[in-house]
Amino acid sequence: MRINNIETIKDLARGAVVLGTGGGGDPYVGQLLLQQEVRNGNFVDVINARELDDDALVVSVAGIGAPTVLVEHLQGTGVCQRLLSRMEKYLGRRVDALIPAEVGGLNSIIPLALGAQVGLPVVDGDGMGRAFPHIEMVTFSVYGKSACPLFIENELGDSVIIENTTSDRKAEDVARVVTGVLGAMVYSALYPMSGADVKEKAILGSMSLCLEIGRSIREGRAKFDDPLTGLLEVVHQPEQNRYAHVLFDGKIVDIRRETRDGWHFAEVDMRPLDGGPDEFQLGIQNEYLTARKNGKSVCIVPDLICTLDRESAEPITAEKLKYGQRLKVLGMSAAPMMRRPECLAVFGPRAFGIEEPFVPLEDLR
Amino acid sequence: MRINNIETIKDLARGAVVLGTGGGGDPYVGQLLLQQEVRNGNFVDVINARELDDDALVVSVAGIGAPTVLVEHLQGTGVCQRLLSRMEKYLGRRVDALIPAEVGGLNSIIPLALGAQVGLPVVDGDGMGRAFPHIEMVTFSVYGKSACPLFIENELGDSVIIENTTSDRKAEDVARVVTGVLGAMVYSALYPMSGADVKEKAILGSMSLCLEIGRSIREGRAKFDDPLTGLLEVVHQPEQNRYAHVLFDGKIVDIRRETRDGWHFAEVDMRPLDGGPDEFQLGIQNEYLTARKNGKSVCIVPDLICTLDRESAEPITAEKLKYGQRLKVLGMSAAPMMRRPECLAVFGPRAFGIEEPFVPLEDLR
Repeated sequence: MRINNIETIKDLARGAVVLGTGGGGDPYVGQLLLQQEVRNGNFVDVINARELDDDALVVSVAGIGAPTVLVEHLQGTGVCQRLLSRMEKYLGRRVDALIPAEVGGLNSIIPLALGAQVGLPVVDGDGMGRAFPHIEMVTFSVYGKSACPLFIENELGDSVIIENTTSDRKAEDVARVVTGVLGAMVYSALYPMSGADVKEKAILGSMSLCLEIGRSIREGRAKFDDPLTGLLEVVHQPEQNRYAHVLFDGKIVDIRRETRDGWHFAEVDMRPLDGGPDEFQLGIQNEYLTARKNGKSVCIVPDLICTLDRESAEPITAEKLKYGQRLKVLGMSAAPMMRRPECLAVFGPRAFGIEEPFVPLEDLR
Repeated sequence: MRINNIETIKDLARGAVVLGTGGGGDPYVGQLLLQQEVRNGNFVDVINARELDDDALVVSVAGIGAPTVLVEHLQGTGVCQRLLSRMEKYLGRRVDALIPAEVGGLNSIIPLALGAQVGLPVVDGDGMGRAFPHIEMVTFSVYGKSACPLFIENELGDSVIIENTTSDRKAEDVARVVTGVLGAMVYSALYPMSGADVKEKAILGSMSLCLEIGRSIREGRAKFDDPLTGLLEVVHQPEQNRYAHVLFDGKIVDIRRETRDGWHFAEVDMRPLDGGPDEFQLGIQNEYLTARKNGKSVCIVPDLICTLDRESAEPITAEKLKYGQRLKVLGMSAAPMMRRPECLAVFGPRAFGIEEPFVPLEDLR
């Protein structure tokens, strides 16, 4: 599919907030960059992974750091292009396509903006089908591809290469501290892979899903009494092993936030609008990790939890939640690959310090 | 000069402790590495900078991190060789010679050990004529050479390149946090320079001085009643603008230590052995920065302060000082280049948060 108009970009950005599952960074800055490209007559093609040659060179491009800084620090167009050039120079060959590391949040849009700038296609897929806070929390890594060589650069041109690490978790640790020194928000080029790797190790179709989600919310507002209806039609398709349902409908009665070790931790309490006795709680570590109703898990990471305004179905990120807000909370199943044991070991509940085991959303209902 | 025997190596290591001015890391681990090379029949030539072609490629190799960790973490021979190969691959040419970044402490010996391993000469010079704790605190940097590309590697093969930074201080900041993640002690190849740069920007002759200092202490023990006599003959040569004298002779009566922000801060109080009224104090931030007698400065950074056992003249590093120790404290003038205003701006008293201006040792007397 070709991305060459503003409406499509807005739909994508809205879908990216849904798949950001509360976190991932506001895609707004990426959206502005991409809109500027389209206004200049540029476009970007999102291609099916099948179109890649097996020996094609595919890389991810992603922001690393505090989204709160990003919003105050608009990215110039140069930094991602420089990253791409550095990766190409290092590897001694041209990059053939880009792939988002995460389809949720800002990093779904950054590769599209770069693709439009330099005329490279973006693969319809990503490494998690959602947002996660760590570099190693991608299927690429779980299935044996290294994040390295990992190129980092900031607006000032300060630049670092993490050439090799004994694990992608260590690459994450290095990238995190370097980001701190280089101004709290940097961009990166990472996970150089072959086309064959992408076909085997990526969550495929996630960019299309992102667009469909964003579009279904917009169209649902005109078409249905409850604008969530259109979204549910897209994300709940049991015949495709895709499950979704509204976990709770109510208002926020308490939020306890804490910023610790560079993470945004929070607990959110909700109650029904009609004053009923149900208690609902969201657990947040940058992204939503757990949803509990009357003390019982109803959705748990890596399955997706999304908060939406109950009138407009506009998705709302965790840092924008506030007392009294009226929300519908949606639970969505992660891609089947994401629920395999080797993936759960890297980004299942235990990876976030949650003792509860993962149980699929559809089984918790 | 050719370094091919154990006595010369021991003399060098002893001299490196003197020029380490209390810090710089214990050269012992480097000494062991170099002795092993010599026992295997290898040697290293320390060459005069004049022997370098102007377009020769010269690089520094240095340990970064906590010397306390180093001592428990003996370096394999591989890591510095890998760093050299990576630098050569990146720059697309062979390295012609090595140069110590600092002649004091461990980093005076590391380039010699690598030189012996790979058959490269080491330049008779360095970037400070002593030890300092920061990467940017070298004359190479003051006079316009960049520390980048700066290659980092640890024993496990975790490897990072700091490709480019807007200042060498920022390269220091990045290297410091990366070192923390990679195990608190790493090795680096940095400051690639031309032979012409070395001739113009290095402190020349400092490796010879280091050896002379170490040798003069050893020989002085047999030759003179006071073994410091031989050392003073070497380091006090007013006709060469080289000044030195004993700042204090006494015992330690109090030490207040603090480890803060990765630094070893300490204050040491000394009193005369004869119970006289003089008060003497050393100020330490990794290295000795200030010496005060009865509240008045008698030596201040970048001039050198060294503590020596008052019987054997064995130099003692700051972390080994203890209550009751009997010491002579030696003050030595820094190389003339180090006292220029542009150098004092980077490693004069103010760079360490000391409000006092720099006054040369010989004027404070």
